[in-house]
Amino acid sequence: MNKKPLILVTNDDSIVAPGIRALIAVMKEIGDVVVVAPDSPQSAMGHAITINNTLHIEKVKIDADLDMEYSCSGTPVDCVKIAVHEILKRKPDLCVSGINHGSNSSINIIYSGTMSAAVEAGIEGIPAIGFSLLDFSWNADFEPVKAFVKKITLEVLEKGLPDSVILNVNLPKLPVDEIKGIKVCRQAKAMWEERFDKRTNPQGKDYYWLTGEFINQDKGEDTDEWALANGYISVVPVQFDLTAHHAIQQLNTWNLNS
Amino acid sequence: MNKKPLILVTNDDSIVAPGIRALIAVMKEIGDVVVVAPDSPQSAMGHAITINNTLHIEKVKIDADLDMEYSCSGTPVDCVKIAVHEILKRKPDLCVSGINHGSNSSINIIYSGTMSAAVEAGIEGIPAIGFSLLDFSWNADFEPVKAFVKKITLEVLEKGLPDSVILNVNLPKLPVDEIKGIKVCRQAKAMWEERFDKRTNPQGKDYYWLTGEFINQDKGEDTDEWALANGYISVVPVQFDLTAHHAIQQLNTWNLNS
Repeated sequence: MNKKPLILVTNDDSIVAPGIRALIAVMKEIGDVVVVAPDSPQSAMGHAITINNTLHIEKVKIDADLDMEYSCSGTPVDCVKIAVHEILKRKPDLCVSGINHGSNSSINIIYSGTMSAAVEAGIEGIPAIGFSLLDFSWNADFEPVKAFVKKITLEVLEKGLPDSVILNVNLPKLPVDEIKGIKVCRQAKAMWEERFDKRTNPQGKDYYWLTGEFINQDKGEDTDEWALANGYISVVPVQFDLTAHHAIQQLNTWNLNS
Repeated sequence: MNKKPLILVTNDDSIVAPGIRALIAVMKEIGDVVVVAPDSPQSAMGHAITINNTLHIEKVKIDADLDMEYSCSGTPVDCVKIAVHEILKRKPDLCVSGINHGSNSSINIIYSGTMSAAVEAGIEGIPAIGFSLLDFSWNADFEPVKAFVKKITLEVLEKGLPDSVILNVNLPKLPVDEIKGIKVCRQAKAMWEERFDKRTNPQGKDYYWLTGEFINQDKGEDTDEWALANGYISVVPVQFDLTAHHAIQQLNTWNLNS
């Protein structure tokens, strides 16, 4: 029999979020689980790291079955770094992040702490998956998607991911019998049309809340937005080489050195 | 005569950093300049945005020539969003971010507030360039690179950038006569090998400082790391579609729906 895989679990909604507890429950069926997750919500932190402040970690006991759970004062990316380089004795076989409360499809990936943690693991050479459920509420129901999370994870462990590729998995908020299947997709071209909600504080000073509307600019039927709108789970392979390789030739025609 | 372009200037080292003042000086020679930059250092903030806290902006007067300078309590990405959607009357013709005190080449782009601000402008459909000097010190000398910053900016305004492409420009710390020229490059494959500096506070509690060593894993001579090590300015075209398109076919051979 094979040795059980060592699985690092993290997220951005904090270590006590129902989403990470659901992910831990699935991962316990698959491998040896170590949890290192933020001690407070870190949504929309992107790939931020803590370089101008100190970091604290605290061994905690939330799941009676687990020996290694740690809360960390830093960002999701900090959690992965300190897990790999300070807490774990060996490189984990897999890092899973989530299950996020809310979508990380299309352009949301770029703001997402959940996905940045997975990307950081990928940079460190660890196969990694970020999972997100299209339900922002704290009381989101993760039961219908657990079997799919397990299936995708087992497939990654069996097949291995291509070099420097991370998976961004988004799960529709649907009863299990209405989920049509799993689709491999590309990231839809989309953006947030911002609106700033301007208010005045009791001292008479203006302040703003960032708000906005999500705009899908992409009509393609091979995108994550299409898949999710049509009842599928979307799986986008993600890379951290941001080079626009197709643009290099064009820029080489410029007069940069004349 | 053409109308002068409207140029939004931001950074991550804060509105008073010498790097942004150098960038403003160059941009004043080219167009009408509006500055919206963080009121405190925001290095390594990645693509973080402020959704669980309020945002403040303050009209300031640092450069006697400028009518529109604002400091913002948020991240570099917040600065771009609030500039475009709240402060500016029309979409700027260009957004420049920097000049960063320190490199944003290769994998550093992913942690960089400077580059995330430029990428955010790109997402909003604004041509954007991030500039970084390979000198972390506050007293870095930006004089030798000003002419190159101007040349690249003028070329972008004249030629236009390919759709959804942003430029990541890194400038070596060299006297002007030792800079060999400008090279269009791809992002080198590189990473940080972390080391956590563990200390104990006066109350006896452990804490950590994130530190580490930069590892260039890439031997290619077409990379930004190679260019910078050999006396060139590196220009990497950057995209925010993170899809690993080459991996889609392979993932479609998996048994995800059996």
